[in-house]
Amino acid sequence: MAIPVETFFLKPDAQGTLQAQIQQMIAEGILSGRLRRGEKLPSSRKLAAHLGVSRITVTLAYTELQASDYLAVRDRSGYFVSENAPEPLPEPELPAAAEAVDWDMALSRQITSSVVPGRPSDWARYRYPFVYGQADPALFDHAHWRLCAIQALGQKDFTALTTDYYDQDDPELVEFILRHSLPRRGIMARPEEVLVTMGAQNALWLAAQVLLGPGRRAVMENPSYPPLKDTLAQIDCDVTAVDVDAEGLPPAALPEACNVIFTTPSHQCPTSATMPRPRREALLAAARARNALVVEDDYEFEMSFLSPPSPALKSLDGDGRVIYVGSFSKVLFPGLRLGYLVGPEPFIRQARALRANVLRHPPGHIQRTAAYFLRLGHYDAQIKRMSRLLAERRAVMQAALLDHGLTIAGSGTFGGSSFWMKAPEGVDMEQVRQHLQADSVLIESGDRFFTGAQAPRNHYRLAYSSIPSDRIAEGVARIAQAITDASA
Amino acid sequence: MAIPVETFFLKPDAQGTLQAQIQQMIAEGILSGRLRRGEKLPSSRKLAAHLGVSRITVTLAYTELQASDYLAVRDRSGYFVSENAPEPLPEPELPAAAEAVDWDMALSRQITSSVVPGRPSDWARYRYPFVYGQADPALFDHAHWRLCAIQALGQKDFTALTTDYYDQDDPELVEFILRHSLPRRGIMARPEEVLVTMGAQNALWLAAQVLLGPGRRAVMENPSYPPLKDTLAQIDCDVTAVDVDAEGLPPAALPEACNVIFTTPSHQCPTSATMPRPRREALLAAARARNALVVEDDYEFEMSFLSPPSPALKSLDGDGRVIYVGSFSKVLFPGLRLGYLVGPEPFIRQARALRANVLRHPPGHIQRTAAYFLRLGHYDAQIKRMSRLLAERRAVMQAALLDHGLTIAGSGTFGGSSFWMKAPEGVDMEQVRQHLQADSVLIESGDRFFTGAQAPRNHYRLAYSSIPSDRIAEGVARIAQAITDASA
Repeated sequence: MAIPVETFFLKPDAQGTLQAQIQQMIAEGILSGRLRRGEKLPSSRKLAAHLGVSRITVTLAYTELQASDYLAVRDRSGYFVSENAPEPLPEPELPAAAEAVDWDMALSRQITSSVVPGRPSDWARYRYPFVYGQADPALFDHAHWRLCAIQALGQKDFTALTTDYYDQDDPELVEFILRHSLPRRGIMARPEEVLVTMGAQNALWLAAQVLLGPGRRAVMENPSYPPLKDTLAQIDCDVTAVDVDAEGLPPAALPEACNVIFTTPSHQCPTSATMPRPRREALLAAARARNALVVEDDYEFEMSFLSPPSPALKSLDGDGRVIYVGSFSKVLFPGLRLGYLVGPEPFIRQARALRANVLRHPPGHIQRTAAYFLRLGHYDAQIKRMSRLLAERRAVMQAALLDHGLTIAGSGTFGGSSFWMKAPEGVDMEQVRQHLQADSVLIESGDRFFTGAQAPRNHYRLAYSSIPSDRIAEGVARIAQAITDASA
Repeated sequence: MAIPVETFFLKPDAQGTLQAQIQQMIAEGILSGRLRRGEKLPSSRKLAAHLGVSRITVTLAYTELQASDYLAVRDRSGYFVSENAPEPLPEPELPAAAEAVDWDMALSRQITSSVVPGRPSDWARYRYPFVYGQADPALFDHAHWRLCAIQALGQKDFTALTTDYYDQDDPELVEFILRHSLPRRGIMARPEEVLVTMGAQNALWLAAQVLLGPGRRAVMENPSYPPLKDTLAQIDCDVTAVDVDAEGLPPAALPEACNVIFTTPSHQCPTSATMPRPRREALLAAARARNALVVEDDYEFEMSFLSPPSPALKSLDGDGRVIYVGSFSKVLFPGLRLGYLVGPEPFIRQARALRANVLRHPPGHIQRTAAYFLRLGHYDAQIKRMSRLLAERRAVMQAALLDHGLTIAGSGTFGGSSFWMKAPEGVDMEQVRQHLQADSVLIESGDRFFTGAQAPRNHYRLAYSSIPSDRIAEGVARIAQAITDASA
């Protein structure tokens, strides 16, 4: 590969002759790893013109570098970085004065992010990955996704691909959400009541930003989705974590005054509890009594392979006080970053203005590809395929858990993709997790889902969305052994 | 198209017989526009099983709906929404109690967004679009972009497509930025010093959030990029707008104390001024004296077809106090939403944590597609093609402006894609803009770039990145006429 001449600059404050400066510039490029063995340098004529020096100066510099084996000449084709050039230094030198700024002072706040779970990014290389929410190559309909993406790259869709939507969304995707996704959850909405987001995480973030602030109180479930905790922690507001039970968030335990209640009624995260109908009504009544809003995270409702999903809480909402969060990532793949918010127009208008300011809009090509994939029925087909496979894996898993006497703390009556587990009191599952990882078994320890000093240490989550059925039994056996070892 | 059975729900609080409820559900679906003429209903057997009612109840409801011409039967293939079914109501009924929530109270803040300029979204239909920053189908290398996207959709890149990067970026894109984009600006950086963002807007937003807060003071240029004004207005901090001159931001006019200085040294937005080398050094010295940071928005540096771009301000930064914002959208297309931040590691770490919390990461497929497009040289080729065309258009434009005696207030010595213009005192260019739009001419009025009560009303911006050369003369003639009319 030829190195573009535009990437060469002489340092304005450099010392020494021009020739020495050029030599140093190239040697530093090689030592920093920027210029690599075998890459072609610009011709001396070109580099001289670019730097504004005479050609002979460049030629002399090249010749010197050749003598020290940084560069090599190939017949008639010019100078290349020599195959014998020194190895790049392991760590390029830091700008000397990086300490001129006191970064502890310069940063206006400290942001913690538990978006990154205790899970290696190369999880797919582990033999027993009980990891949650990752794309399983065996399940994802890559071929049709590709075709839809190619269609969305076509000349006809040039505008959808390239347009700056400013604060708008792809109308085709919005229409599909209104006509197909939401009716399945019992929700009717108008286009002005929907906002496409960069995944459910982004939707929760936008809702929290628009609804919370100084003097406001948020309620979240305990345990709950860790990134929600981070999002709320970064807003100047009061946060109360309310312990969930086997039916999810108990309305009776809500504080007397609160403004926004974050809940996962259809599939509590991480316990998998489904909130029964009477409690949903009680929750809405409790919200009404407090003049509070409810943010419903309806993740994973598509994975209802054991029984049909109950309609969303939002479908019972006559007041317009429920904000609904949906996502396509669970069925498609998490790297997609595509979800949506549904709520009353004044709320959506503000969330849209904030989204425009933060990032403008989710990329047009991804919105259009998803619209095609959904409209052509591939999404529904994928749900069916996943449901069959997850049902099978779940059965294998349940049998294995029973065999080894492991305690299921929550399993979701409708399906889902994980079990919420409980080890004997006194077992620190984060330690067990680390042991298991060395044994090629990946699990999630439960502590990161809890809030408060008294967070139990003996919970864990086992997902079956990314592990083949025939590895489940052995994986569970290793987990059981590790827990036994830890209890001893 | 068949309507999926899952989209039918009986309202839990509905009145009347089951049959009446089913009739009402379907009729409402048709009247709301959710069910459309010619669409097929589920079989009575399927719908009965889904709703948990007897099949005869569904059959009776279907028969009644057929009698009233909501539904029609086609031989052996079942029930369809009739071609004679009533038109959907123009506006579906709002949930009755949307007023149960006082949204003025419920929203914690009012967000204004001037991301949306005074420009119709169907700008491409206008004959003389002097619009800024939009993709010109004649310029964009759609064919190669498509090939790169298809390559990035391949089996080999399955992981890049689907992976949840959490807080990471595509390593291939980061490597390209480090080895090719930044060296052209005279910048050397390590991977830990780069963060991929959802465009330059998102980069500026992240930097402002991480560096500003109560008790901190930001400096921005006046006039300046309108979305930056919104971003700063939404943060609890002091903002000082400093008037720029023909050399950009004057360091001597900086307030005694400030924490973060937002500047566009290579190409002031919107005046096109390039900051000369001595002033850049003075600006860095002034920042050092105040212990302030500098956020450099280096947009459009690729459009340097008249003279080579000066190295970025960041390249002169020995202190690590400059945060650099780059973007691919100007050369590719604005709907891409891909840019980057470069800065010292402590800063990037915080910006990364915030990005993870807000949206996790830019979609993998887009990052990988861009990496291929860049690596295969298409990006550079596109810059060359654009530069030729823009140089030609600029010459045509300059001649036309001269012909009509229009005053250029700023034009950018190195190239760019727009002229910053000034009408005679007293002319309100926002009014002129509205007149011109009705005459199929799109321009930008300048008032939205200014801060403060005394914002001049007689500036405007004319871009030549989306208008063909052969329409420029006539478009400029119409502008000149409209300004003459307004001055009369």
